[in-house]
Amino acid sequence: MIGKFIVIEGLEGAGKSSAIAVCQQVLNDAEINFVNTREPGGTPLAESLRSLVKATHEEKVSDATELLLMYAARSQLVENVIAPALGRGDWVLGDRHDLSSQAYQGGGRNIEKHKLEALAEIVLGELKPNLTLYLDIDPKIGLARAANRGELDRIELEQLSFFERTREVYLAAAKNDKSIVTIDASQAMEKVHSDIKDALNQFISGATA
Amino acid sequence: MIGKFIVIEGLEGAGKSSAIAVCQQVLNDAEINFVNTREPGGTPLAESLRSLVKATHEEKVSDATELLLMYAARSQLVENVIAPALGRGDWVLGDRHDLSSQAYQGGGRNIEKHKLEALAEIVLGELKPNLTLYLDIDPKIGLARAANRGELDRIELEQLSFFERTREVYLAAAKNDKSIVTIDASQAMEKVHSDIKDALNQFISGATA
Repeated sequence: MIGKFIVIEGLEGAGKSSAIAVCQQVLNDAEINFVNTREPGGTPLAESLRSLVKATHEEKVSDATELLLMYAARSQLVENVIAPALGRGDWVLGDRHDLSSQAYQGGGRNIEKHKLEALAEIVLGELKPNLTLYLDIDPKIGLARAANRGELDRIELEQLSFFERTREVYLAAAKNDKSIVTIDASQAMEKVHSDIKDALNQFISGATA
Repeated sequence: MIGKFIVIEGLEGAGKSSAIAVCQQVLNDAEINFVNTREPGGTPLAESLRSLVKATHEEKVSDATELLLMYAARSQLVENVIAPALGRGDWVLGDRHDLSSQAYQGGGRNIEKHKLEALAEIVLGELKPNLTLYLDIDPKIGLARAANRGELDRIELEQLSFFERTREVYLAAAKNDKSIVTIDASQAMEKVHSDIKDALNQFISGATA
């Protein structure tokens, strides 16, 4: 049996880390073996690329370079971690995946959709998450939370309008794709967590029925 | 006036380094301002990517990752070095460029042409070398020369058939594109160098006429 691929998505400060902890608990309770991933990153080479893409450099990092580094890291992770895990029947719980590139590089950076689709074809082929939990938050709120948490990386230092464009892609994707469940991350934390639990438990019931 | 972009291409051991020295001399004699580049590399970030792509890693480096890292490095170099140099009227003398990816990743690694074309669109747009000097060598001879020179990197450690497929793409490209001049690099070094000088001087005469 092939495993299922669950992805947590959302803007900075949407609460991805605690959402992942909630999902881990739910998967453990359901006695499902799973592998945790994060993007960009998740293999030694992909983590090196993560550091390079998040660092502030003296030279300008072009939008195309950022885009290609994201997909290079994804390529390593897919081939060395995600695909093997799913193939042996484990589930994968991902902190971000391709939808982040569609949202940040496609929306935030205004990179044309056909370019992202070409990269997805090169790196992903037919791979697609079975369930995406998108934590929706107004970037004004999310960025304030993220800033309180500590220093912002190169991408987190973008203007508010960047994140507004990013959110628009997330919302449009969630509207068009039934495998993406939107969680209102502006609610009280307990309610956010119970929404996440409900969505994941419902998916598990369907997947293991 | 926009500068000209000259590229030296060829397999390992074809004599690219001494060919570049010859071209530098010719350009200096013609009193042309030029910038030297090498690929992958040529900016601090692109050089970091060069190190990552040439190193041997404990994890398998997927063909798609290698491809994307090559184009990420190229993207940095084009945006931060090549395009600005050409824009201010300088010439650029490149040690490898896009044709290397077409040959090594397209030929050697058998990556489909439409994927390379999509990446070239993302990274290069309309940029194209004005003159490519392709140093043609039988890989059996070239690899023996390269091996004598010292340790081989991850890509140089490929099988002979890899380099035979790579050479085929170079030869096919040279046949179809008049801006690519093939130099027979199996000749005595003096003859190779005089062929390079002739080709470059002829180009300079046309370009500055």
